[in-house]
Amino acid sequence: MSGQTTYIGMLGCGTVGQSVYQILNGNRDFFLRKMESDIRIKSICVRDLKKDRGIDAKLFTTDYKQVICDPEITIVVELMGDCPDALDAIRLALSRGNSVVTANKAIVARHALELFKLAEENNCELLFEASVAGGIPILRSIREGLAANHIQSLYGIINGTSNYILTKMTKENAEFDDVLSEAQKLGYAEADPASDIEGEDAAYKLSILAMLCHGKYIKVEDIFCKGISYIKPLDIKMAARFGYVIKLLGISKLQKDSFEARVHPTMIPTSNPLAHVHGAFNAIQYHADYAGEGMLYGLGAGGHPTASAVVSDLVELNRNIQSENEINLAPSGFLPKTLEVTKPSDILKLKTCYYIRFSVLDRPNVLAKITAILGKNKISIQNLYQHGEKEDEAIPLIVFTHLTLENDIRLALKEIDDMDFITQMTKIIRIEDD
Amino acid sequence: MSGQTTYIGMLGCGTVGQSVYQILNGNRDFFLRKMESDIRIKSICVRDLKKDRGIDAKLFTTDYKQVICDPEITIVVELMGDCPDALDAIRLALSRGNSVVTANKAIVARHALELFKLAEENNCELLFEASVAGGIPILRSIREGLAANHIQSLYGIINGTSNYILTKMTKENAEFDDVLSEAQKLGYAEADPASDIEGEDAAYKLSILAMLCHGKYIKVEDIFCKGISYIKPLDIKMAARFGYVIKLLGISKLQKDSFEARVHPTMIPTSNPLAHVHGAFNAIQYHADYAGEGMLYGLGAGGHPTASAVVSDLVELNRNIQSENEINLAPSGFLPKTLEVTKPSDILKLKTCYYIRFSVLDRPNVLAKITAILGKNKISIQNLYQHGEKEDEAIPLIVFTHLTLENDIRLALKEIDDMDFITQMTKIIRIEDD
Repeated sequence: MSGQTTYIGMLGCGTVGQSVYQILNGNRDFFLRKMESDIRIKSICVRDLKKDRGIDAKLFTTDYKQVICDPEITIVVELMGDCPDALDAIRLALSRGNSVVTANKAIVARHALELFKLAEENNCELLFEASVAGGIPILRSIREGLAANHIQSLYGIINGTSNYILTKMTKENAEFDDVLSEAQKLGYAEADPASDIEGEDAAYKLSILAMLCHGKYIKVEDIFCKGISYIKPLDIKMAARFGYVIKLLGISKLQKDSFEARVHPTMIPTSNPLAHVHGAFNAIQYHADYAGEGMLYGLGAGGHPTASAVVSDLVELNRNIQSENEINLAPSGFLPKTLEVTKPSDILKLKTCYYIRFSVLDRPNVLAKITAILGKNKISIQNLYQHGEKEDEAIPLIVFTHLTLENDIRLALKEIDDMDFITQMTKIIRIEDD
Repeated sequence: MSGQTTYIGMLGCGTVGQSVYQILNGNRDFFLRKMESDIRIKSICVRDLKKDRGIDAKLFTTDYKQVICDPEITIVVELMGDCPDALDAIRLALSRGNSVVTANKAIVARHALELFKLAEENNCELLFEASVAGGIPILRSIREGLAANHIQSLYGIINGTSNYILTKMTKENAEFDDVLSEAQKLGYAEADPASDIEGEDAAYKLSILAMLCHGKYIKVEDIFCKGISYIKPLDIKMAARFGYVIKLLGISKLQKDSFEARVHPTMIPTSNPLAHVHGAFNAIQYHADYAGEGMLYGLGAGGHPTASAVVSDLVELNRNIQSENEINLAPSGFLPKTLEVTKPSDILKLKTCYYIRFSVLDRPNVLAKITAILGKNKISIQNLYQHGEKEDEAIPLIVFTHLTLENDIRLALKEIDDMDFITQMTKIIRIEDD
């Protein structure tokens, strides 16, 4: 190893960027115990030069191209967030042979194939540990630690905001809207929470995880995605009564004749380790053919955990740059040319158990009509629970089904929801119980 | 990458070795999606050539030196278990410049410094992911995934046998001896279970984990180590009553003025994720300065999970060998020259809360005498519970203390155990409650 310094350019300097700076600058001696060479941030592109970030102002510029085109800079850290220039910046850096570390899940999920190719052609690397589950070293673990395994399935609590909300709703028997407003006040949820609570954020992460697990590239749009805003305290209570907990899961399953990739609220047994992942914590559970069942748990967001992931990528890149080593690790663990561009199976083909919440008027014969339609559609009932009793008023009717085809559920609900005794659209929660 | 084949020699072919063979030979196409080059097992050293292992008999030899000295072989996989030749074999392989993958925790824990130096001098690598927690990619996660962090503490359930026994005792309110015999019959415990149940196995693993977490090399003999054979169903019941679960933990904590490394049964709150790690599962929880709290969970032993870890090391070595890359990753994550040879703090300096189980004759004044001695030794009582009431018969007396110095506990118990109303040596369980 040469003992030289590796110079880094950083694009963006919000909480993550400031943490990255803190780690690298505050721990020089520590890193020199790990590598013979030093990593230094040479310049940082920011929008507002005057904002005080506790960092020497001489490092700042507003021109990202200037950072990338500095010939001394060999690694570009892209932390621009939703900025429209982020993708162009990554493209420019890779095309100039600069390795890139990014935390941008949307860009990785949408442009992985193009960017992997660009990195390969220009003999540099694209690393993105920070794009999924922040401080949890999950990408590295799947790509390298579990390299021997076919990953058969993966279940992830990969959105901290929605897990925080569901946990609060569970502990306090509170309504979704109330918990969301409180979370927004406390800074646990964004002013515009749609991406977190409607599952989009989780879908981006799931698409990246599925690529590393199965060597399959899927478009985020092709992932079935349902958020948590329709969940009621009653659903949580009914789940508990039957031994379940409700979590927003990203699920990826590879079976002989199907490949499932879906994000939705899910009932899992309380005996499942994921059931004990509370608050803003994330966790990813996997089933691998040799390693068996496993789970990684930790903080999925925030400046410090995300910076921990960014710097782990920097340490790896720095070692290889200083050794002038040939790049031999594919960014997804699978050689880019072997990545299969594919679509997950249609959600209508899903076969699982369902929780169904009907909202019905409490009239004679309602139960007979509903069960008849369910039966006609091959839906067999495991448990049925009628909540309360107020003649001719709306009450919830809860059904747990045996294994059922999603298509049959949809057909049955379409018919049932047209009935005059139905007061609200029927809701379902899928159950994972194996 | 050159597309050549990397030839491996394997020493030992028990359940782990057979799984390694199965993974490599059964998944050629899969690995060719991950690397441009092939890995092949060229020869295997076994004790008994005639035993049927479902592997082409031409691969077998009884001479480990022949395997290591084969000029085509560049990686040696050491899976000889307790065999006295294992250390010599690793030394010979490294000294010839062959990289080595081993699952042997005792050898890594005892000879890390010598072997790391040998590998460095001969420009080859020593990897040992399989030596700790089998299928859980914990070493790689600490060394690389958490490379940005100072790991402040680590708590590990790192012995499956003792976790299986404690789980069974908890679920079935059963005595240690009964569960152990049953576990032996079922193959979950060895015929000679001492190393597993007395904590030695966990201490080896803890010494390796502490090295990767803190860059400190400690001798196994210097790790305070206490097993689970003294745990009674009553202890488990009392723990539950006060919101705790008992687990055999390996604990490593680095604080400003102390460095703790200890293995013992520990009471942890039921809200701790480790409390939900049941049966033969392992889990390692860490607190890192940037990544925060995290946990890795999975199968810690068995042929398949251990082979998964061995092959993850092989995949990494193969990539580097085929690229003819310079070796730039220190086996512990810290450059060998920076590893600090040190001793953990004396257990007598430990400050924690304690559970104390006295066995006393139910006589007047016993309580007064015990509490007086505890008080004299600065031990303050949080809870006191007297179990049953049978005049002049032995009954358990349970005390939960506030924060106490271990030395004070020892002094008090020494005095109390000399009293004529004490019928059995007093037992303690340390509590971790932060």
